[in-house]
Amino acid sequence: MIGSDDRGPASQQGMRRQNLARVLGAVAAHGPLSRADAAARTGLTRAAVSSLVVELIRDGVVVELGPAPSGRVGRPGNALTLSSEGPAGLGLEVGVEHLAVCVTDLSGEVRAQARVAADNRGRAPGPVLAELDALADTVVRAARGHGLRVVGAALAVPGLVDAASGAVVHAPNLGWRDVALPSTLLGLPLTVENEANLGALAELWQGGAQDVVHVSAGAGIGAALVVGGRLFRGARGFAGELGHVPVHPEGHPCTCGARGCLEQYAGEEAVLAAAGVEVSPREDRIGVLAERAAAGDPRVLAALERAGTALGTALAGAVNLVDPSAVVLGGAYAELGEWLLPGMRRELSERVVVRPWQDGALSVSVLGRRGPLLGAALVTIRRIMDDPASVGVGHG
Amino acid sequence: MIGSDDRGPASQQGMRRQNLARVLGAVAAHGPLSRADAAARTGLTRAAVSSLVVELIRDGVVVELGPAPSGRVGRPGNALTLSSEGPAGLGLEVGVEHLAVCVTDLSGEVRAQARVAADNRGRAPGPVLAELDALADTVVRAARGHGLRVVGAALAVPGLVDAASGAVVHAPNLGWRDVALPSTLLGLPLTVENEANLGALAELWQGGAQDVVHVSAGAGIGAALVVGGRLFRGARGFAGELGHVPVHPEGHPCTCGARGCLEQYAGEEAVLAAAGVEVSPREDRIGVLAERAAAGDPRVLAALERAGTALGTALAGAVNLVDPSAVVLGGAYAELGEWLLPGMRRELSERVVVRPWQDGALSVSVLGRRGPLLGAALVTIRRIMDDPASVGVGHG
Repeated sequence: MIGSDDRGPASQQGMRRQNLARVLGAVAAHGPLSRADAAARTGLTRAAVSSLVVELIRDGVVVELGPAPSGRVGRPGNALTLSSEGPAGLGLEVGVEHLAVCVTDLSGEVRAQARVAADNRGRAPGPVLAELDALADTVVRAARGHGLRVVGAALAVPGLVDAASGAVVHAPNLGWRDVALPSTLLGLPLTVENEANLGALAELWQGGAQDVVHVSAGAGIGAALVVGGRLFRGARGFAGELGHVPVHPEGHPCTCGARGCLEQYAGEEAVLAAAGVEVSPREDRIGVLAERAAAGDPRVLAALERAGTALGTALAGAVNLVDPSAVVLGGAYAELGEWLLPGMRRELSERVVVRPWQDGALSVSVLGRRGPLLGAALVTIRRIMDDPASVGVGHG
Repeated sequence: MIGSDDRGPASQQGMRRQNLARVLGAVAAHGPLSRADAAARTGLTRAAVSSLVVELIRDGVVVELGPAPSGRVGRPGNALTLSSEGPAGLGLEVGVEHLAVCVTDLSGEVRAQARVAADNRGRAPGPVLAELDALADTVVRAARGHGLRVVGAALAVPGLVDAASGAVVHAPNLGWRDVALPSTLLGLPLTVENEANLGALAELWQGGAQDVVHVSAGAGIGAALVVGGRLFRGARGFAGELGHVPVHPEGHPCTCGARGCLEQYAGEEAVLAAAGVEVSPREDRIGVLAERAAAGDPRVLAALERAGTALGTALAGAVNLVDPSAVVLGGAYAELGEWLLPGMRRELSERVVVRPWQDGALSVSVLGRRGPLLGAALVTIRRIMDDPASVGVGHG
């Protein structure tokens, strides 16, 4: 009843793009796959699949491997698989103590990477980005050597990001406030995203749970909420500030101006101070803590126990509020899981209202501190998988 | 490309149902409205609107008022408006200290209601529901006297509700645990829902903000999260347990078994105890507190200040986590807003990470303790507005 004549062609094109994504998705999940199997898995006709595959091969997204094994009578189809030399995603990370870059192919495998230690506390954005740019250039060249064509980039930053503009609203551990970032890097479209969000997305995209509170802890403590398989951003895009959930309201003053925030009990600085551990600027702080804890240093063990308890207290409140099916400890703190989890589990089981709390609902991220950088590279891969036609634009 | 022939008729019927809802929505928002204006507002043809209106009038959802004022040349259309004698919704509430029932018409106006004081603490569900049933029968009869036809019912309970089965998983202030409730009441389909959720929905459906942490405080403290104009339920349907967010982790033992939960500082019992106020069983506790606070009783003022601070601490954590655009104080505590808001505002402005915190983002519900019951009645009204064809089933 609504006049739709003028939307016919647009809808048909939209349908074709969706079908490209369905075929590509089937190849990614089940490949190598014959055209007939792709048709069976997608519900599309064999003719439609063949036509779509022409486009996917032309854009370098899918390649033909040769005859697929087949027990059936008749001509075996050529097996289709994701190209390992096709379009690729660039991930970038500005950490408090490092810069990192990687390129992943369509399967999400890291094919080129670089990481340099750098004390970025208080450094101006310009020089940091120039250094990152140079590092990215090296990694993109290496990826090109593997036949990969990088088509997009995303940057992980430890702070609040304005989702619309990509500006860094506040990154306290870098000392950045209201920093506008370029919309391209090396000529590639650049997305800027909070590191905790990217860590959670990396976990989700690699098969993680659909409703998660994902903690990213290290120099700062952030969290990302995944709801129904999607990132939950909040009204303004600033959801997940777990580090400033109060755990001891009249407790230690926090750099944010308030008192008793989680970071003052579970943040890296607070743990190092409580443990009486001094590290040189270029040392890996979390590595040092893990080493001493493993060696049984009682002050380190006590500091980690206190941190785990504080994390558990804050997370119990978060679980009572948003009722996730899983809580994941990610970021560098994943390496401290052995010592943090007991306190976290105790608090969760004592405080979560819907009982019993299942210990298995709290787990340690397998990606750990690699999560945000990998998530950044996968942003582009996900875009390609969702709309493979988008990479063909350059071929026009 | 996907074979859709077999879904054609179903889709056409679905389209007609959607269009019925669009016409009804236009009449609700802008009526009285001529058919021509309804066509203009919905983008449907005049012929289509006329056909749909026949059905809406037949089902008693819309009535014709007579000629609408029109400055245009030609035959003026008859104005369409929501029927004030059409299908209606029944709301029910089991409170800790009362039972309540109301019926609203399609415009959301309460047309019949009843409320009785009843100390429901520790009462078995059977007698409570029998009493509620009798009360509902009286109110439905009164509504029928106004020409209203009640077509559905929803029940507000102060506890965790299993969304799939409608069973009350745990209502600590009633002492109910794993209580299966009937799926009908007076022969009407019955939906069971947490009272805080219904209070938030009532506010939302009456034009409230789209991203809200809505606190429902009274005998217990609950919250509901509204995200993008929809109720956020969490993975299992238990989101919003604000009352058991820890505010002083080593503080007062809570009935839930943990320590330092918000309810121990801001719940009704805690405030009465801190204020040194004793009330007789049938007295309105919140009313007594408001009266003494207004009279300047220093212990009551101090207790409310402490409660407001605790509420603000817990809410600051919630705001940092879920980044709503608004926080609403609802339930009976809306009547204590004058004394609670200063402490809440102070905590929020000190602790919310994204600054400045806008004082206007915290407000007091205009519905207050009427919210959950009204929300319960509106559940049915919203269903009718979303799918007006559903009320026509009985007419076959």
